Amino acid sequence: MRAYASNLTLLTDFYELTMMNGYVESGMDEQIGYFDYYFRKLPDQAGFAITCGLDSFIDYIENLHFTEEDIEFLRAKQLFSELFLERLAKFRFSGDIWAMPEGTPVFPNEPIIIVKATMFEAQLIETALLLLMNHQSLICTKANRIVRSAGGRAVLEFGARRAQGVDAAVIGARAAYIGGCGGSSNAMTDKYFGVPASGTMAHSWIQLFDSEYDAFKAYTTVYPDSTVLLVDTYDVLASGVPNAIRVFDEVLKPLGKRPVGIRLDSGDIAYLSKKCRKMLDAAGYRDCKIFASNSLDEFIIRDLLYQGAKIDAFGVGERLITSKSWPVFGGVYKLVATEVDGQLVPKIKLSENVGKITTPGFKQVWRLFNKDTDSPIADVVTFHDEKIDVSESFELFHPEYTWKRKTITNCYIKPMMRRIFDGGVCVYERPGLEAVKQYCQKSVDDLWEEVSRFENPHRYFVDLSYDLWKMKRELITHYDEKK
Amino acid sequence: MRAYASNLTLLTDFYELTMMNGYVESGMDEQIGYFDYYFRKLPDQAGFAITCGLDSFIDYIENLHFTEEDIEFLRAKQLFSELFLERLAKFRFSGDIWAMPEGTPVFPNEPIIIVKATMFEAQLIETALLLLMNHQSLICTKANRIVRSAGGRAVLEFGARRAQGVDAAVIGARAAYIGGCGGSSNAMTDKYFGVPASGTMAHSWIQLFDSEYDAFKAYTTVYPDSTVLLVDTYDVLASGVPNAIRVFDEVLKPLGKRPVGIRLDSGDIAYLSKKCRKMLDAAGYRDCKIFASNSLDEFIIRDLLYQGAKIDAFGVGERLITSKSWPVFGGVYKLVATEVDGQLVPKIKLSENVGKITTPGFKQVWRLFNKDTDSPIADVVTFHDEKIDVSESFELFHPEYTWKRKTITNCYIKPMMRRIFDGGVCVYERPGLEAVKQYCQKSVDDLWEEVSRFENPHRYFVDLSYDLWKMKRELITHYDEKK
Repeated sequence: MRAYASNLTLLTDFYELTMMNGYVESGMDEQIGYFDYYFRKLPDQAGFAITCGLDSFIDYIENLHFTEEDIEFLRAKQLFSELFLERLAKFRFSGDIWAMPEGTPVFPNEPIIIVKATMFEAQLIETALLLLMNHQSLICTKANRIVRSAGGRAVLEFGARRAQGVDAAVIGARAAYIGGCGGSSNAMTDKYFGVPASGTMAHSWIQLFDSEYDAFKAYTTVYPDSTVLLVDTYDVLASGVPNAIRVFDEVLKPLGKRPVGIRLDSGDIAYLSKKCRKMLDAAGYRDCKIFASNSLDEFIIRDLLYQGAKIDAFGVGERLITSKSWPVFGGVYKLVATEVDGQLVPKIKLSENVGKITTPGFKQVWRLFNKDTDSPIADVVTFHDEKIDVSESFELFHPEYTWKRKTITNCYIKPMMRRIFDGGVCVYERPGLEAVKQYCQKSVDDLWEEVSRFENPHRYFVDLSYDLWKMKRELITHYDEKK
Repeated sequence: MRAYASNLTLLTDFYELTMMNGYVESGMDEQIGYFDYYFRKLPDQAGFAITCGLDSFIDYIENLHFTEEDIEFLRAKQLFSELFLERLAKFRFSGDIWAMPEGTPVFPNEPIIIVKATMFEAQLIETALLLLMNHQSLICTKANRIVRSAGGRAVLEFGARRAQGVDAAVIGARAAYIGGCGGSSNAMTDKYFGVPASGTMAHSWIQLFDSEYDAFKAYTTVYPDSTVLLVDTYDVLASGVPNAIRVFDEVLKPLGKRPVGIRLDSGDIAYLSKKCRKMLDAAGYRDCKIFASNSLDEFIIRDLLYQGAKIDAFGVGERLITSKSWPVFGGVYKLVATEVDGQLVPKIKLSENVGKITTPGFKQVWRLFNKDTDSPIADVVTFHDEKIDVSESFELFHPEYTWKRKTITNCYIKPMMRRIFDGGVCVYERPGLEAVKQYCQKSVDDLWEEVSRFENPHRYFVDLSYDLWKMKRELITHYDEKK
C-alpha cells in the first residue's frame, strides 16, 4: 500500500512521457523551454487567491528520479525507445525555477512559477507541479476566507474524514494553517509539519457511558485542564448543558480549575449558542467558551455572527478541506518561450476561448505598493530583465481595453518572483511554517478591503508592460495572418 | 517529504487519541463496541452511490502500528499517561470487520462497514476509515455517472493536475476505473494498480515546433500506430484539422496505417465536432475518432450528445477527480452497540436534526432481488443474526411512515455484509481490479432505470426489520422520557 509514496516521479500524465520520448526521437529534447504556472479564474468569485504548495514542489523536484522498476514498467509498454529509457535512468532536474513565496496573494493571469529547463525536463514535471500547487493554493485560499469571516475568532481545521485522500487531509491541513487556521484535528499534520493538533471527544464517548453525566464526569476527571464537552448527543438545552455545568461544579470547582468550553455539533447553532451562553453565564461560567462545528464555511459563519450567535471558536470540516463551494483551482502550465541558438523565441497558444490565449515571453511580476499604507495597488508583468521606473509615477493600462489607463504616484515596487532553483540546485532558503503563516496574514491584511471582501470584490489590476503587450499583440496578429 | 506515507497510523483525529487515553484511564478501553459506517445523503441527488475504498482500508488495518517516533511525538504533548503510551507501542488491530464489497451500489442509512472491536481499537481507526471510504466512494460514484452519460462511448480519467493531492490523483484514478472509466492519464495508477494509462500530446508539443504541421508530422512519425493529434492550438477548422489530414495523408498512408483520432480541448465542442467529422469523412478518415476534453461532466456530456455532437471518446478531468458538483461524500462512523458481560447493549445518538439519529444494534443488510430480472427491489436492515423469509412474500414498511407498506413476491435475498477481518486477521479474498470493475458494472446494470436515472430518481427502499425498528423506537422513547 502506498508503495508509490516516497517516489513521485511517475506521478505524471502519460502524455508527458510520450512527448518526452517524441522530443528525443525528434532531436528536440535539449531545447530550452520556458513555462509559466498561472491561473485564469479566482475561486469563489473572490478578489484574490493565495499561492501555496511551493514547499512540496521543491521536495518533489529534489527527489525526482526513475527507479529501475519505473523504467521496466515503461519498457513493457513497447512504446518508448531504449535511448529514451536510458535518458530516464539518468534523469535529474537541472533547470531553473522562479516562484512567488508561499502565502502570497496572487491574481489571475500572472506567472506564479516560471520553469526554464530542457523540454525533456520541463515536460515531465508539469502534472505534479499543477497538482501540488493547485490543491494547496485552493485550500489555503479557502481557509483564509473562512478565517476572515470569523472576525478574529479561532478557526480549527477538522476535515480529515471528508478529505479527498490522505494527502488532501495531511497537506491540506498545512495549507489551511498557512491560510490562518489556528490548528487542525489531524495528528499526522502535527507530527510532520508542526501544525498544532487538538481535539476532545466524539459522540461515541458520550454513548459509551451509562449516562451523559457519567461520560462528562469521566472525561473531566481525566482532562481537568482541557475540558471541552460535546453537549448535543441527546438534547443540548435539556440535558447537555445542565450536565456540563453540574460536572464543572462537581469536578473542576473543587480542584480550583475552570472549563475550557462546550461544543455544539448539530441543531440550530445560532439559537442554541445564545441559550447556552445564558445558561453558562448564569452558572458562573462566563469564561467557558462555546465551540461550534457542523458544515460551516465563510458564508454560514458570517451569517451566524450576523445573527449574534455566541460562538468563540469554529471547527470547520468538509467545506474547508474540499473547498466545497469551489473545489478546483484551475492553474495551468503553459509554454511561453523557447531558446533557439541562445535567442529567446516567445511562444503563444491561441484558442477559440479568448481567455485561454497565453502571454508569451520570459517574465517578471512587479507589485506596486502605496508608500503610505503598504497596500498593493497593482501588479505589472514585464519581460524578465525589464526595469520599470515608478520614482515619479507609473501609467497602468488595461491589456484588453487599452484606453483604460490610470496613473499611479507615491508608490514603490517589489519583484515578486524569487529564484528557487539554479541549474537544478535549490538556492531558496525556505522559511519555516510560522514565518509563512505570518507573511500570509500580513500580506492579506495589507490588501485593500475592496479587494478582499467576499461580495463583488474590486478586480485588482494585473497589467502588462508596454513592451510585453506589444510583443503579445504582434504574435497574435502573426498567427491570425497565417490562417 | 511524505515521510508519513508508509505508516498511516497517526492519520487520525486527535480526539480519537484523547478518547483512547480516556478509555484507558476510565477502565473502559477493553469494552467491545460496534460501529457502523454509513451515509445519510446521496451525492448529486442521485438514486444510489457505489462503495469503494475497502481495498485501501484493509491495507491500512493490516499496517496499523505506532512507531517509537510516533509515541515520542505523543509523549511530548504531556497529555497522555505512560500506561496509554505503552498500550500504543503494542497496538495491533484485533477486531472483526464486515463490509460490502467494493463496487456495490449502496443507499442511505444502511451499514456499509461494521467494526466490532475494543473501544480502544475501534476509536483509533475512525478517521482513516472515513477518509478512505468517503473519498473513494465519492469518485467511483461520480465516474460511474459520467460513464453512464456517455452511452457506451469511452470515458478516460484525465484529472491528476486538478486533483486534491497525490492520493486524490492516484487512488482517485483507481476508483474512477472501478466506476467504469476505460483508463487514466496517470502513469502512477497504471504502475501500482494496473489501471491502463494513455496519452498523446499537449499544446506545448505543437508550440515547440515551427508550425502545427511540423509538430503533427513529427509526432505521427514517432507514433504511427497511435496517432491522436490535438487540433485546437491555433484554429481547429482553419488549421488544426487540415494539418492533421495532410499529415495522415503524407505520413500514415504510405505506411498503410490509419490514424487513431484527433482531440478537441477548447471552443464549442458540439459545433466543432460536427464540422471536424465532416472534414475527416470527406478526406477518407471515417474511422478517425474524435476525442473531446475541457471541463466535461455527466451533464455536459449528456447535453453534447443530445445536440448530436460527433464525439467517440471523452477525456474527463477536474469535474470527475474532485466530483466538482458534489465534492463530499458524507459517510459517518457511529457507535451502535456495546457489549456488557457478553450481552449486546444497543446504543443510540439522538439529535436536534432528526436525520442524524442513528439506528442502534449489530446489523446485517439483506438485498431483495426480483427472481426474473435480478434487479434489486429493496434493502432490509436486520439484526445480524436475524433471518428473514421471502419464500412466499415479504412485507416492507417505511421506518418513518409506517403505514407505507409494500408486499414483495417472486424475490430472493442475499446478505450484503461479508466478513473481512476475524480477530484482526483478514479473511477476505480480495478480488482483482478487473473483477471489481465488472462486478460494479453488472450491479449497476441490474438496477431499475428509475433508480439509476439522473433526474428525480426513485428513492430505493432501505427498510428495517420489524424487530430492529421496534428496538430503535423503544430506545428513542427511553431517552425522551429521561429528559
